[in-house]
Amino acid sequence: MKRREFFRSASAATVGAVAATTLAAPAIAQGNITWRMVTTWPKNFPGLGVGAQNLADRITKASGGRLTVQVFAAGEMVPGLQALDAVIDGSAEMSHGTPYYWQNKSQGLSFFTGVPYGMTSRELTAWVRYLGGQELWDKIYDQFGLQGFLSGDTGTQAGGWFRNELTGVSDLQGLRFRTPGLGGQVWAKLGASVTNMAAGDIFAALQSGTLDAAEFVGPYNDLALGFYQICKNYYFPSFVEPGLATEIAVSKSKFQELPEDLQEIVRACSQAAYDDVASDMYANDPRALRALVSEHGVQIRQFPEEILEAGAKASMDLIAEIRQSGDALTKEVAESFVSAFNLLRERTEGTDMPFLVARQKYIKYS
Amino acid sequence: MKRREFFRSASAATVGAVAATTLAAPAIAQGNITWRMVTTWPKNFPGLGVGAQNLADRITKASGGRLTVQVFAAGEMVPGLQALDAVIDGSAEMSHGTPYYWQNKSQGLSFFTGVPYGMTSRELTAWVRYLGGQELWDKIYDQFGLQGFLSGDTGTQAGGWFRNELTGVSDLQGLRFRTPGLGGQVWAKLGASVTNMAAGDIFAALQSGTLDAAEFVGPYNDLALGFYQICKNYYFPSFVEPGLATEIAVSKSKFQELPEDLQEIVRACSQAAYDDVASDMYANDPRALRALVSEHGVQIRQFPEEILEAGAKASMDLIAEIRQSGDALTKEVAESFVSAFNLLRERTEGTDMPFLVARQKYIKYS
Repeated sequence: MKRREFFRSASAATVGAVAATTLAAPAIAQGNITWRMVTTWPKNFPGLGVGAQNLADRITKASGGRLTVQVFAAGEMVPGLQALDAVIDGSAEMSHGTPYYWQNKSQGLSFFTGVPYGMTSRELTAWVRYLGGQELWDKIYDQFGLQGFLSGDTGTQAGGWFRNELTGVSDLQGLRFRTPGLGGQVWAKLGASVTNMAAGDIFAALQSGTLDAAEFVGPYNDLALGFYQICKNYYFPSFVEPGLATEIAVSKSKFQELPEDLQEIVRACSQAAYDDVASDMYANDPRALRALVSEHGVQIRQFPEEILEAGAKASMDLIAEIRQSGDALTKEVAESFVSAFNLLRERTEGTDMPFLVARQKYIKYS
Repeated sequence: MKRREFFRSASAATVGAVAATTLAAPAIAQGNITWRMVTTWPKNFPGLGVGAQNLADRITKASGGRLTVQVFAAGEMVPGLQALDAVIDGSAEMSHGTPYYWQNKSQGLSFFTGVPYGMTSRELTAWVRYLGGQELWDKIYDQFGLQGFLSGDTGTQAGGWFRNELTGVSDLQGLRFRTPGLGGQVWAKLGASVTNMAAGDIFAALQSGTLDAAEFVGPYNDLALGFYQICKNYYFPSFVEPGLATEIAVSKSKFQELPEDLQEIVRACSQAAYDDVASDMYANDPRALRALVSEHGVQIRQFPEEILEAGAKASMDLIAEIRQSGDALTKEVAESFVSAFNLLRERTEGTDMPFLVARQKYIKYS
């Protein structure tokens, strides 16, 4: 018996037994569904882990408990990086993570998280929601029986924590740097010895000297992880992570079994969560950065121009390689991304940037 | 009898009559609520009017029709600028507009739309959702029995349509310019003869020579209004409207009578709408701008530096006046805004801008 048929039968049977004095609520209660959300984040992880919990709570509340979402932090049910597989194999109904964690399934997924020197948070939502991005994302996840929705964004990240000040590209040769994904590939092209490791392992690796440098997210998250105790040079911006969008990946068959109102609740709550997490990070990053500087002696630095320029060339080379040698669907994603990027940057560079430049130059409030 | 009690009684009565073979759905149907949303926008107005309709449809769908929202375009029930009063007097349950339309009720409301040389869209959501803005907004609307929620954003707007090219502040003296709100006050300080008029009247006023120039929103909206037929100089950016947030203002008592799940649906759908409208505008502004240039011979221009600088000084003067002479609550809003602005710009200027500058300089895709 299918899940939906089961609930229909249960509802009908219950209503048959309803006494004249009771309300309809118990009949609905019989139809309650519980979903397990496995996440890739530590419990209560600022911004992202909290955002996953808030999204789950919001779905539960908006559905009046008809769809209750239980959250499992990384490691509670499965290790963080097995969250998507847990949804695919049916041991969870949804995962909360970021598409580029699954680039071994399709390289095209990286574009929905954000690529080096790529889209900002708002450019990404414009592409995904209004310029064909979601449809291509759906094509990729269809292959795995999944449905993806954006669920948050870090905004432009910090560039990373470095033991020593950087003067140019020569300082990067052989530098043992924790930075994952396509961003890591860019840094490798610049000469760094790139490695990935889980959030919880970075501090010890910096302390022992296994790592020379590390990047994670931004001040809000990095403050909590304590990197400032070892590295005092905090570089901005992360030109390889101009925004990192998070997702929920939902079992498509389970999603389709939901009645339409609950489907819409999942959709709307995920979109609300995108705005909520992005706002949370935007508000709390500068607060955390002030604390890092005033309480922990951190030096805020901008990358030398030589590194910004070499990073741009390496990023363009990487995207060119993907456009040339990716699988058919990844190529389609890359072409759509580049076309949208070229359109959207016209707005960013013709409207947003001139405003920001003038505001920076002329506005001062005490 | 209170609304909620009425629905409870209706449900109980209906359940009592349910036959053994029927489902619970009809009992729920008896509890359906219909809300009237009066908007300040023309019907199907790109981005904003469409956004109001989408939000209404989404609430209806997410609630399975338990809360059905009917949309009335400006003029269908009441004129656009009487939308808020219609909610206050109970002839509608919610309005869709923008807070600064109601600055005659409280000047502090302008800050939740956006002020001259003020916050970007993401800075605004960070302030409203995470740095105390919503609480102050609630204090203002409490006085009128309303509850406000953000429901969309235009992003940084266009500066306006000018018959002649601008060389400096001297060109603005006596210039008859349609531009409303606090932005209009800034342009008046620069010497322009400022006036406001409804969207539908601007074209004729430009054509007859009653106006020398006009600003409305941005390319997506302005293309539809046909200003390019008269003025060919399209200036960017609007330093007085770095973002215009829209709202829904809901009758607080009607909102509180809703069961908790429907309250959460209204909240979540509004927040989702914020992201949706901002994405729509961001995707469609540059498409419309391409059409204006390639099909209608429009010249894209940036304001002369002298105007940007004088506009900044006038904006700071205006905010200083509000901080000094506003009513107590407006002062409280202004102080909260300035404090959040000073914090958030550290992130924008230390992280987002250096990224955008480097990307503009080095990244090129064909």
